[in-house]
Amino acid sequence: MKGTFLLFSLLFFVLTAFAEDGYDLWLRYNKISDPVLLQQYRTKISSIQFPATSPTLTVAKKELLNGLEGLLGSSITDKKTISGQSITAGTSSTSTFIQSFLSEGKFSLGKEGFIIATKKIDQKNVILIAADSDVGVLYGVFQFLRLLQTHKNISQLNIVSVPKIQNRILDHWDNLNRTVERGYAGASIWNWHLLPGYIDKRYIDYARANASIGINGTVLTNVNANAMVLTKPYLEKVAELANVFRPYGIKVYLTARFSAPIEIGGLKTADPLDTQVQNWWKQKVDEIYSYVPDFGGFVVKANSEGQPGPQNYGRTHADGANMFADALVSHDGIVMWRAFVYDARVQKSTENFGERKSDPNAPSIASSDRAKQAYDEFKPLDGKFRKNVLVQVKNGPIDFQPREPFSPLFGAMPQTPLVMEFQLTQEYLGQATNLVYEAPLFKECLDADTYAKGMGSTVAKVIDGSLETYPVTAIAGVANIGNERNWTFHPFGQANWYAYGRLAWDHELSSEQIADEWLRQTFTNDLHFVDEAKKIMLMSRETMVNYMTPLGLHHIMGTGFHYGPAPWVDNAGRVDWNPVYYHRADSAGIGFDRTIKGSNAISQYEEDVRKQWANEKTCDEKYLLWFHHVSWKYKMRSGKTLWDELCYKYYSGVDSVRWMQRTWNKLKEYIDEERFEQVKMLLAVQEKEAVWWRNACLLYFQTYSKMPIPPSYEKPDHDLDYYKALTFPYAPGNNGNL
Amino acid sequence: MKGTFLLFSLLFFVLTAFAEDGYDLWLRYNKISDPVLLQQYRTKISSIQFPATSPTLTVAKKELLNGLEGLLGSSITDKKTISGQSITAGTSSTSTFIQSFLSEGKFSLGKEGFIIATKKIDQKNVILIAADSDVGVLYGVFQFLRLLQTHKNISQLNIVSVPKIQNRILDHWDNLNRTVERGYAGASIWNWHLLPGYIDKRYIDYARANASIGINGTVLTNVNANAMVLTKPYLEKVAELANVFRPYGIKVYLTARFSAPIEIGGLKTADPLDTQVQNWWKQKVDEIYSYVPDFGGFVVKANSEGQPGPQNYGRTHADGANMFADALVSHDGIVMWRAFVYDARVQKSTENFGERKSDPNAPSIASSDRAKQAYDEFKPLDGKFRKNVLVQVKNGPIDFQPREPFSPLFGAMPQTPLVMEFQLTQEYLGQATNLVYEAPLFKECLDADTYAKGMGSTVAKVIDGSLETYPVTAIAGVANIGNERNWTFHPFGQANWYAYGRLAWDHELSSEQIADEWLRQTFTNDLHFVDEAKKIMLMSRETMVNYMTPLGLHHIMGTGFHYGPAPWVDNAGRVDWNPVYYHRADSAGIGFDRTIKGSNAISQYEEDVRKQWANEKTCDEKYLLWFHHVSWKYKMRSGKTLWDELCYKYYSGVDSVRWMQRTWNKLKEYIDEERFEQVKMLLAVQEKEAVWWRNACLLYFQTYSKMPIPPSYEKPDHDLDYYKALTFPYAPGNNGNL
Repeated sequence: MKGTFLLFSLLFFVLTAFAEDGYDLWLRYNKISDPVLLQQYRTKISSIQFPATSPTLTVAKKELLNGLEGLLGSSITDKKTISGQSITAGTSSTSTFIQSFLSEGKFSLGKEGFIIATKKIDQKNVILIAADSDVGVLYGVFQFLRLLQTHKNISQLNIVSVPKIQNRILDHWDNLNRTVERGYAGASIWNWHLLPGYIDKRYIDYARANASIGINGTVLTNVNANAMVLTKPYLEKVAELANVFRPYGIKVYLTARFSAPIEIGGLKTADPLDTQVQNWWKQKVDEIYSYVPDFGGFVVKANSEGQPGPQNYGRTHADGANMFADALVSHDGIVMWRAFVYDARVQKSTENFGERKSDPNAPSIASSDRAKQAYDEFKPLDGKFRKNVLVQVKNGPIDFQPREPFSPLFGAMPQTPLVMEFQLTQEYLGQATNLVYEAPLFKECLDADTYAKGMGSTVAKVIDGSLETYPVTAIAGVANIGNERNWTFHPFGQANWYAYGRLAWDHELSSEQIADEWLRQTFTNDLHFVDEAKKIMLMSRETMVNYMTPLGLHHIMGTGFHYGPAPWVDNAGRVDWNPVYYHRADSAGIGFDRTIKGSNAISQYEEDVRKQWANEKTCDEKYLLWFHHVSWKYKMRSGKTLWDELCYKYYSGVDSVRWMQRTWNKLKEYIDEERFEQVKMLLAVQEKEAVWWRNACLLYFQTYSKMPIPPSYEKPDHDLDYYKALTFPYAPGNNGNL
Repeated sequence: MKGTFLLFSLLFFVLTAFAEDGYDLWLRYNKISDPVLLQQYRTKISSIQFPATSPTLTVAKKELLNGLEGLLGSSITDKKTISGQSITAGTSSTSTFIQSFLSEGKFSLGKEGFIIATKKIDQKNVILIAADSDVGVLYGVFQFLRLLQTHKNISQLNIVSVPKIQNRILDHWDNLNRTVERGYAGASIWNWHLLPGYIDKRYIDYARANASIGINGTVLTNVNANAMVLTKPYLEKVAELANVFRPYGIKVYLTARFSAPIEIGGLKTADPLDTQVQNWWKQKVDEIYSYVPDFGGFVVKANSEGQPGPQNYGRTHADGANMFADALVSHDGIVMWRAFVYDARVQKSTENFGERKSDPNAPSIASSDRAKQAYDEFKPLDGKFRKNVLVQVKNGPIDFQPREPFSPLFGAMPQTPLVMEFQLTQEYLGQATNLVYEAPLFKECLDADTYAKGMGSTVAKVIDGSLETYPVTAIAGVANIGNERNWTFHPFGQANWYAYGRLAWDHELSSEQIADEWLRQTFTNDLHFVDEAKKIMLMSRETMVNYMTPLGLHHIMGTGFHYGPAPWVDNAGRVDWNPVYYHRADSAGIGFDRTIKGSNAISQYEEDVRKQWANEKTCDEKYLLWFHHVSWKYKMRSGKTLWDELCYKYYSGVDSVRWMQRTWNKLKEYIDEERFEQVKMLLAVQEKEAVWWRNACLLYFQTYSKMPIPPSYEKPDHDLDYYKALTFPYAPGNNGNL
């Protein structure tokens, strides 16, 4: 019996003392295992000199002491004066030595940057961790500990690090009842009911983890917002969380329910041009700042997927955003106004996608391409927003798919700072069970060239403000954490939280470098393990694209829960929730024609981009079916027909998962059994799900292509009806399912 | 700022390595701290002889080795032959030495009992852990480890232990979407979505924890049942959990939705006398056993709180239960049919409780006393159930209140084995935040004398079958665990899980003894700590009764969520959901007249019990207002008026919580900071909630008594309207809130 076998393999690791349960994330601080290196480190660090004159310096010092004592396995002396073989940490205010060092160097560290440098005093080396601000010291401490955790040479240090983006934010889609929209790691970590009286230790470890990767803001509540969080009892709770996070340099933000003035304010309207409404928000904002003096501001989802907004009153997004901005500006608060909108145009429709050309009454594709709507609605508003408004744009024009081209809004709104919104939680990326390292996805978008100001106008430069100059910049990641013991449920989900933070700090880091340092801190510095696990991570996203949505396919997952494949769905509540809307498979071919002959969404890109993608022959094949409706027999660059290439991609996706399994299974001896077995089980589930995706999609598309799956491939083990009949009423992440 | 202060006190414990997060429960196996004792133990145990020839013996041996190596801090040799200074563990089948020992001793160990004894071999002492069954050995191993964990003398061991009740079950009110009805510790530990592919390590540690206290059954699903768990995809998941639990001697049970034949079977009826329905259940049961060969059986909640049942078809509870029994009997499965019913008689009513005497149309109290209904419905069915049916009865006649007299069904159904149903989860006992050690509550019920067969006919003897002889006996506890890191959220909630298991094994253990061993295993063996913490535990339940429902008051909590006090509620969906229905305060007095002048519920008790409780003067004052409507000026045994006594009780409840706080605060140095701070914060919340209960209840009752709160007491800091206006829409445990 398979179950029994699995069980027995489990029994072996159950009883191990001090098993690794993943709670400590990348901050394990286990003693350095290499005795030579350990000795070297110990020789260089026997004491610290670190006057802790503020809450932030206090936590930085504790982290440093705790980290060093763990890593070096020896106690560290806290000295009043600087000596050799020591670390001196602080700012110009806390150390005259640092003061003179910083003033000599004339560094531009800003509010958050730091320096880690080796200096000689009396012939003895001292390691300096210095910054202009307390939080800069905290970041420097974490970076220094990372050097040790990843076994770096610390003989001659000279690191200057300054974040490229100002506000590096984690967005929680967490509801007040502790369910999490699109959460796959248990309940919300925010135990609202027990705040402010009970402070879960998780809150502090959450702050530590974020600070260690430079995240400096957290949006506590779901973008599908609940006005109640703005009432007094909840503001008391919010204030307590803000108190916990403050020493770690983390600001608290909330989502503002647009209709709150009606729902909790007793007003008759939420019209942003109504002075009563404006005053209500001003007073509400003042009230919030009385609880949280450094409150960061609001994220607003308005006129999208049923959320109320300014358009309910005939006003624009700018009218709405500016109302909040005016209320916040005197407190230095910001508004992040989401551009994820698709209410305005497409509603229920009778469009027949299977044979749409035969339906003369169908609306034209042009008017119903959801990919165009954010641009169409927001581009005209450029220049109309207050200075403390940012428009928050998802990386792609649809919705966090395994692969999308970058959103055309990047580079298209030069007068408006844009917030990049990434999704760490794997709503469309296999949810709880699939190993997908997202850094390559993030990088693909950040490194994409918008050509907004000519070649080299990358998305990253739009976001970090280096293309235009903005007073404020920001990046947001939708959190993938919950109250599971290891935070993200999948051990490799932690890597996405980590990678997001690291890239938010410095988008020039490579996916490989981030994977390398995450693996070393999280598992082991063993080179063989790191190399092999890194291969798995680096190929994982492309693997998923292959078995889910190759060649530019998108949005063909199950409706509602977004779990598993369902390319056949044509009866969802809105026409643009239907997979058939997106893949448009018919007897002629497959793909969404977004060229000028189709929806012309491609016109939203700069000419240099457009030129390349508009032509089937020059379009990157990874975006082919995103922009083109292509004949089944179309000849791909590989020489295969499109159908055969599609088969090849789906099958190679599954093959790659199997390769990941084999590779992982050989790594058993290098790490703890608990996490090894966890990942092993999850890879087995992933393999099944990859096969499910492959079979369901190919069998369905085959009903249009009428072409065979090449006989060299293993046959699908079920027929299409089987896959269509599967239901998952309690799949997590939606409708209060966990 | 209080928050900041709290924060800083927290910062000190955050960074401690190897903090105690509570996950390990009472199975921590930390090295014995007393060096003398450690040396003694080491001298007595240097090796084991333990052939592991089955899955159960395999896990027992691993547990023993792991436990010993942790506790003794030294490695233990696994020897093939018996030698001195060793432990020999096994059964007659695995060891000839044990075989001759057991046959000489002629012990009656049954299916689960064990012996731990010191024997001499070649002048050297050997410790025997012996049983007639593999699971008996497992229980013996856990008991032996407990001896070491609690620092007992192991020089001359002679322990024979046999459980008094056969089926010792934990009931989970867990839904398939991972919410937990009346759960206050996060999401369900059952991750149904990821079963059977992913086996959470928690499942194994759950099994270990249960086995360590003798729990041998688990009902996986909510009594408010979902038929879907009986479908193939879910049975595959159930089978995997059963595979995990089997080596630990734990059987799996499910709740059966009475209407499942309609909902998932496609039948038109669920009438238990319909042969189609009977056949459907027979086939369904056979199918379940094909997945789980040792399936335990069903728990059924029928015709109660909206659940369907046999009465929908004009049949009796016996008809319904027997249908399941017939389907299960050939597999040795049992039915636990719940007696928690109160649908039949009381529906919506216009009864005016405030001044009910003035309403001539109000139904008589007699016909509407919910306390009577279980007895009224089930007593006549005694003798009508199949042999494999047990009737499951809550400890008191209402619903898990802080204090209730025992249910009159105990002793009233001599021909029917009754399952005692306790509630570990603190639905009415302060939920997540209140420290309440429940053993005294359990013991109060188990030790109560029903007089069913004369003096000494305790409830415990009814349950364990020693009063009548039953082929099957059982006890159930509604679980208080979830996916929070420490399982129960409140560190002391673990004690209730522990105490339930220990009492289910041996109800003669004292609350004090169980508290003692739990504290030693869970925190420390330091005598001062154990003594002081034990005082807190032992007084905690009476303390809660005092600040919530003293003198026999009951069911005056908030509607729906059951959070906080709401004695004023008179508009709930059913008349018997209203607090006013239960306390019946009016200008004359307070309390529910259940004597012959009132509902006559008291007639359901045996004469010896009835005689004592029927008279105000002889009735135990802790049940006074349960059975009597008493004048505000009634003279209590203390000499105080009832009103003054009520004030005294409420105030002393709060005082006791404050004493608990002071006592706990002095214990800081004895245990880890993480759990110390957790409990400290929770006690502070409890103190606030106790004040809230006290003030809200007294201010409300005062509107009837018109008497002053004695001036020596601190004044309520809010008025009654303030308390009435409080709302908690996201309080956990109901409507999918976590």
